[in-house]
Amino acid sequence: MTTAGIPETNSGTDLWARAKKLIPGGSMLLSKRAEMYLPQGWPAYFSRTEGCSVWDLDGREFKDLGLMGIGTNILGYSRPEVDAAVHETVNKGNLSTLNAPEEVYLAEKLIELHPWADMVRYARSGGEACAIAVRIARAASGKDKVAFCGYHGWHDWYLAANLSDDDSLTGHLLPGLEPNGVPKALTGTSIPFQFNDLDQITAIMDADDQIGVIYMEVQRSDPPAPGFLEGVRALATKHNAVLIFDECTSGFRRELGGLHLHSNVEPDLATFGKTLGNGYAITAVIGRASVMEAAQTSFISSTFWTERIGPTAALATLDVMEKENATQRVHDIGTKVQAAWEQVGTDAGLTVTTGGLPALANFTIAGLDPLAVKTYITARMLDQGYLSGNSLYVSIAHTDEILAEYYQALSIVFAELAAMDDAQLAAALPHGLAQSGFRRLT
Amino acid sequence: MTTAGIPETNSGTDLWARAKKLIPGGSMLLSKRAEMYLPQGWPAYFSRTEGCSVWDLDGREFKDLGLMGIGTNILGYSRPEVDAAVHETVNKGNLSTLNAPEEVYLAEKLIELHPWADMVRYARSGGEACAIAVRIARAASGKDKVAFCGYHGWHDWYLAANLSDDDSLTGHLLPGLEPNGVPKALTGTSIPFQFNDLDQITAIMDADDQIGVIYMEVQRSDPPAPGFLEGVRALATKHNAVLIFDECTSGFRRELGGLHLHSNVEPDLATFGKTLGNGYAITAVIGRASVMEAAQTSFISSTFWTERIGPTAALATLDVMEKENATQRVHDIGTKVQAAWEQVGTDAGLTVTTGGLPALANFTIAGLDPLAVKTYITARMLDQGYLSGNSLYVSIAHTDEILAEYYQALSIVFAELAAMDDAQLAAALPHGLAQSGFRRLT
Repeated sequence: MTTAGIPETNSGTDLWARAKKLIPGGSMLLSKRAEMYLPQGWPAYFSRTEGCSVWDLDGREFKDLGLMGIGTNILGYSRPEVDAAVHETVNKGNLSTLNAPEEVYLAEKLIELHPWADMVRYARSGGEACAIAVRIARAASGKDKVAFCGYHGWHDWYLAANLSDDDSLTGHLLPGLEPNGVPKALTGTSIPFQFNDLDQITAIMDADDQIGVIYMEVQRSDPPAPGFLEGVRALATKHNAVLIFDECTSGFRRELGGLHLHSNVEPDLATFGKTLGNGYAITAVIGRASVMEAAQTSFISSTFWTERIGPTAALATLDVMEKENATQRVHDIGTKVQAAWEQVGTDAGLTVTTGGLPALANFTIAGLDPLAVKTYITARMLDQGYLSGNSLYVSIAHTDEILAEYYQALSIVFAELAAMDDAQLAAALPHGLAQSGFRRLT
Repeated sequence: MTTAGIPETNSGTDLWARAKKLIPGGSMLLSKRAEMYLPQGWPAYFSRTEGCSVWDLDGREFKDLGLMGIGTNILGYSRPEVDAAVHETVNKGNLSTLNAPEEVYLAEKLIELHPWADMVRYARSGGEACAIAVRIARAASGKDKVAFCGYHGWHDWYLAANLSDDDSLTGHLLPGLEPNGVPKALTGTSIPFQFNDLDQITAIMDADDQIGVIYMEVQRSDPPAPGFLEGVRALATKHNAVLIFDECTSGFRRELGGLHLHSNVEPDLATFGKTLGNGYAITAVIGRASVMEAAQTSFISSTFWTERIGPTAALATLDVMEKENATQRVHDIGTKVQAAWEQVGTDAGLTVTTGGLPALANFTIAGLDPLAVKTYITARMLDQGYLSGNSLYVSIAHTDEILAEYYQALSIVFAELAAMDDAQLAAALPHGLAQSGFRRLT
C-alpha cells in the first residue's frame, strides 16, 4: 500500500534511519518509535505544532487524532497561555543558585486540589516520580516489597517483577518488558496482582508481611469494580502498607486532579506526570505528611528537579484547565467519540467495541486481526492527513468541526475494512504490521 | 551578626519557611537548601537572572560568585543565544506524538566531540542518566555488581553502598547519605573504592568476578595520579567490566566534552548533565555501540525524555561554548581566581589553600574551623551583595571587572577573619553554622 499524502521515504523516515544508528531504539520513548505506528513511511519527526495539528519535517500538516504527545496535551498543542508563562520564565531565568518560587505555589495548588495530601516532591519524568514514591513508601513502611498492578515505568523496582517469571508484567499494559540489567538480588521484591481481583491481592498481602507498598492505577482499561478500590485501601491500612495511586496517565482526565477524586478513595501517595504541564516536563509525588516526611530520612536529590519551566508550565496549565473546565470536557468529548466510533462502524457494517477511560479511549473491530486493523487504519488515516490509529487521547483542541471531518475520513477506512478478510488485509500491508509491546529495533 | 544589605527575614526566608511545610527538605536539591548556606537570612528564591547576577524576591541584586546554579551555567545566566533557541522551540512546539529532530542532531554533535563513542541516550536529570548508564552496563556485562568512586546521585544502585556500612559513602563527596527505602536485597551490590588508590580497586576487582561496572569521576578534588586512570581502564578491560566516567559535574569545564578528553583515557560509557544545556534540563549517556546496544535488551523509556527544549538548549549551548572557547576560559578564569584567593589571603595575613578543578575551585583557610569560616564568609559576602562562600563554579560571565570587585569585597572579610580566633568566630555567628552534607531539615 502506498500513502498518497506522504511518500514512504521522506525527511522524517530518513532522519529516523539515522536516529536508529545513534540512539538505541531510535527514541527515548517506546511509544514514539516509528515502527510502533507503521513499518514504513511514518513521518517520525515534527517541526511545529498548534491545536491538534502537527507539521512534519517536510511541512505537511497532520491532525493528531491519536496520542497527543502520548497523553501530554489535554489543552491541545502550543496552548498560548501555557507557552506565554514559559516564555516569561525563559526571560526571567530558568535556573540559578537560588530556588524557583513557583515550586512552592504549585505545591499549594496540588494540595488544594487533593485535600487528603499535605506535601509534594517533583521530578521531571514519570518513571522517576514513581521511583521516588517507592523510595519514600519503602522508607515510611520500613518494608521492601511492593505489590503492584499496571504500568509504572522503567525503573529497577518495577522491572524486578520480571526477574522471577519472564512474563509477570504481561497483562500490565506492556508485554515483554525485559529486566536485563536489573539486579537479580531484587528477585521477589515486586509482586504483581490483577486489577479488580480483590481476592488475589488479599491473599498476597496476607501471605507476606514484608510488603510495605501497594502501587496501582485507579483505572487503565476497565473501571474499578464496586468495592475494589475500597477493599485495597482497607488492605493497605490493615497491613501498614503505603497505598500509591499512579495518576501519571489518568490524572486530569476526569477530575481536576487525580481520577481517584472521582472514587472517593484516598491513597497515601499519588504520582502525576503526562498532562500536568501540557507538554512541558513536570511530574510530581503528593502525599500525606506522615508518609512524605520519610523523604527526609532518605537521600532524594537532583539538580534539574529545580528548574523553573516545569512548575511554571504546570501552574499555567492548571489555571487554564480550571477556566476551561478541560478535565470534564475531555471526558465528555471522549464519551461522544466512543459513541461515534460505534456509529461509524455500524454504518460501515462493522462491529466496533470501545473501551478505556473516555478521555483515553480506544476501539476494536470484530472479526479481523487487531494489529493488522490498527496498522491499516494508521496507514490510511495518515494518507488522509491524520496521525490516528485505534485510540484517542482526547484534548479540548478536538473540536466538533475537527471531529466531524475525522469521522468522515475514518468512515472511508471502515468501509474498506468492511470489505476485507484477514488475507486481504494482510495483502494490503506489504510492509507488514506495526510493532506492539517491547521489542528490539533493528 | 546582622546583614546590612538583606534583612534576616525577607520574602525569600518567609517563602522558604512555607516551602519546608509543603516540600520535604524544602527544595528538590540538597544544595539549594537555605540552611546549606546560612542558618538564617539566606534569600532562598530568585525572581530573575542575568550574566552572573541573581535578583531575589525583593528585587535585590546579588552577584553569584558561588555555585552558579550548582554548576549548570558556564555561559552565565540567561545567555541570549541559548534562550533564543528555547523561545523558538516554545513557539514551534515542545512535544508532540512525533519526535524532536534536535535529539538526533545533538547525538551527532556529542559523538563528534567524543570520537570513541557511537551512541547516545538522554534523560532530564543527572541521577537518572547515571541510573540508565548502570542499567545498560549491567545488561551489557551480564554482571550485577558495581565498583564506584565519588558521587553519582540518589538512585538505589548507588545508595545501596550504604546498606552494609552506614558510612561507605563518606569521603565520596557527601557524608551521611541515608539508604532508607533502598531494598536491603541490594546489600553488597555497590562497592566503593578510593580515588587514586589503584591497588585497592585492583584487589576489589580481583576478589569478585561479579563486578561488571566501574563507575567514577575523572577528577573531583585531586587530579588523577599518573597511571591511575590508565590502570583502571586496563582493569575494566581485563575483567570484562564496563568503565563509566561520570562527567555530569566535570564535563565542559576544561575540554569541549568530557574531562577525560584531557587525559586520553577512554571509558565505555560517559554521563553528562549540569552545564550541558546551560541551565535547561538535559542529561545524556554516551557510549560505545557494543555496550549501548544493550539498551535495546532492557526497557528504558520515559515520555519527558522526548521533550524538545533539552536538546535544543544543549545544541545552542555547545555552539556558544565552541565560539566563545568557553571551556578553556572557565579553566583559565578559575586558575586566576585560585591565585587571587591565595594573594588576598596573604595580604590579609591568612594562609589560604586552594583546591579542585580550576573551573570548580575552592579554598580553605588555615587555623580556623572550616564550616564556621564558610558560614561567616557567606554571611558577610551576602551583606556586600554576593552569593559566595568558599567555592566558585566559574562561568564566562565572571569578567575581570566583576572579579576585581569581588576580590575587594572578599579582602574585607578576610581581614575580619584574620583578626579572629575560633571563639570570636563562633560569637560572630549567633544563629550557628551552615549545614554540611545530608541532614534532616526541621
